[in-house]
Amino acid sequence: MPQASHVNRQILLASRPVGAPRPENFSLVENPVPEPGPGQMLLRALWMSLDPYMRGRMSDAKSYSDPVPVGGVMTCGAVCRVEKSNLDGYQTGDLVMSYTAGWQDYSISNGAMVFKQDPNMAHPSQALGVLGMPGFTGYMGLLDIGQPKAGETVVVAAATGPVGAVVGQVAKLKGCRVVGIAGGREKCEYAVRELGFDACLDHKQDSLAQELEQACPNGIDVYFENVGGKVFDAVMPLLNPHARVPVCGLIAQYNATSLPEGPDRLPQLMRLLLSQRIRMQAFIIFDNYGPHYPEFLKVMTPWVRDGKVKVKEDVVEGLENAPEAFMGLLEGKNFGKLVVKIAD
Amino acid sequence: MPQASHVNRQILLASRPVGAPRPENFSLVENPVPEPGPGQMLLRALWMSLDPYMRGRMSDAKSYSDPVPVGGVMTCGAVCRVEKSNLDGYQTGDLVMSYTAGWQDYSISNGAMVFKQDPNMAHPSQALGVLGMPGFTGYMGLLDIGQPKAGETVVVAAATGPVGAVVGQVAKLKGCRVVGIAGGREKCEYAVRELGFDACLDHKQDSLAQELEQACPNGIDVYFENVGGKVFDAVMPLLNPHARVPVCGLIAQYNATSLPEGPDRLPQLMRLLLSQRIRMQAFIIFDNYGPHYPEFLKVMTPWVRDGKVKVKEDVVEGLENAPEAFMGLLEGKNFGKLVVKIAD
Repeated sequence: MPQASHVNRQILLASRPVGAPRPENFSLVENPVPEPGPGQMLLRALWMSLDPYMRGRMSDAKSYSDPVPVGGVMTCGAVCRVEKSNLDGYQTGDLVMSYTAGWQDYSISNGAMVFKQDPNMAHPSQALGVLGMPGFTGYMGLLDIGQPKAGETVVVAAATGPVGAVVGQVAKLKGCRVVGIAGGREKCEYAVRELGFDACLDHKQDSLAQELEQACPNGIDVYFENVGGKVFDAVMPLLNPHARVPVCGLIAQYNATSLPEGPDRLPQLMRLLLSQRIRMQAFIIFDNYGPHYPEFLKVMTPWVRDGKVKVKEDVVEGLENAPEAFMGLLEGKNFGKLVVKIAD
Repeated sequence: MPQASHVNRQILLASRPVGAPRPENFSLVENPVPEPGPGQMLLRALWMSLDPYMRGRMSDAKSYSDPVPVGGVMTCGAVCRVEKSNLDGYQTGDLVMSYTAGWQDYSISNGAMVFKQDPNMAHPSQALGVLGMPGFTGYMGLLDIGQPKAGETVVVAAATGPVGAVVGQVAKLKGCRVVGIAGGREKCEYAVRELGFDACLDHKQDSLAQELEQACPNGIDVYFENVGGKVFDAVMPLLNPHARVPVCGLIAQYNATSLPEGPDRLPQLMRLLLSQRIRMQAFIIFDNYGPHYPEFLKVMTPWVRDGKVKVKEDVVEGLENAPEAFMGLLEGKNFGKLVVKIAD
């Protein structure tokens, strides 16, 4: 679909999904490009991020953030170029990361949740992944809550996704044994061969629990929880005394419409926490760790530049393809950080 | 039952309980008083502690500590007098706290897990409660994991027990709103009137969930978990963003023989942790915090002496009554720290 420069294409939440999102939950509309008022600027989206947390925003269940209203623009962060600026400190042509851009070509910003980027950065889309929210999530959750020590075993699922890949690679840099879990042989091979994981297991195999036990002969000291569901079921019996479980996401549960059948294992989990003296702590990255973002960038930027942390992106072309790509993300169809290229 | 000084009465684990312990799970035997070898001492138990964790030791389910073998002496800590000593640093007549005394009149010790007490201490039995393992548990769990801030709301169950009473009173000293939960009107009145809790709710009332919501108009910031079961069910919907949940015990679950019926709420708990960014951390006091014991004593001893932290004991006379008292403890029949007086 060609896009005229005076048109702002927007993808709206047409209706709230029940279970997995479907195409009819989204609608594409065209509106005039808005004009920035005093103290505002107009941003042109170049690269848009698709992340699992957006499923939560489509639902009106109680969560840490307000839902997108039905009829509202879907929420996302994007790397943008400043088109027009009435805001001090920003000029036309500046490259910025805006966490409030939304699924649209153009957005108006007053500078809140906007971070200037190096205009010469080699890969601006990395601001959405390894150098942005997902990378920061993996880094802080692993190091601050996970507290990995050399020789310990760290397990992380969605191992080739932007959070899991950072968790595993940073844990390797800290001297840990790293076992990944991913969907399918190709991703598992990549995690071991390219990312340097010690092992990576395919969660599509029925034998996940046994394979995980074999891959973790000394148990699990840190389980970085970003998926939930049957991966966590396989992890639980292997958690060592004083294990740490940072919780940043539960993608396997996001489309659930009801609780699973019984028995009720909530008391079992509590008992496990107690008998193993486990620390389980959930966090939302900018909410818990916002002030640490500059120090994270200072460490991660050279790691990426020097190839100590490798990066894989799954690039989809065109805003109009965002809904399909997002639905695929929730099924694990992406391979690497999913980004949508909107404009040059 | 009169006790001859050359006889060591011992209470053994006769069989593992299924569900609630019953009298036939215990047996009382008489053996000769043992003789201490080189590097050992003979301890005479004066005050013996009964605590919920002992239920775990009667079971062979995986836990943080080995179970008592069937036919073995039941485990407990006791305040003891040194009767004979072949161990450097200990003399006949010394007052000690031994964490390995067991349910018996006499025990042999090599000094491990033994702490000397002030021979002039006014209430030696307090070494089993407010100044011992339970008090230390409440203090460290609340302050280190709970991190209570003035004005926050702290909820603790078993409010008149030795852990809950310390949690609540220390939280009050830190300027928190404290809501206790206890079994029966008498305990609730005591928690408010004597311990200074802002409110205390009777968990025997069906309306616990609604009453808790009313008693916590600003939600719950710290829930000190020592009971589990339906109290936790009532607490969960009220947990605030960034709430902390230290977990030290689950007495309401210890006698369970199977998991409750479904649905399976484990995913719901994970989702709650995530949406509210909750820290839930279990701990076993000497395992996690052993080196902090002296600093705890330095703070708590004057608080108790000056009446800032009040103490209530439930004293049972006679070793032979320990099994019945312990079975009652698991049903909440005690009022205050349960101790057994064995000898003067």
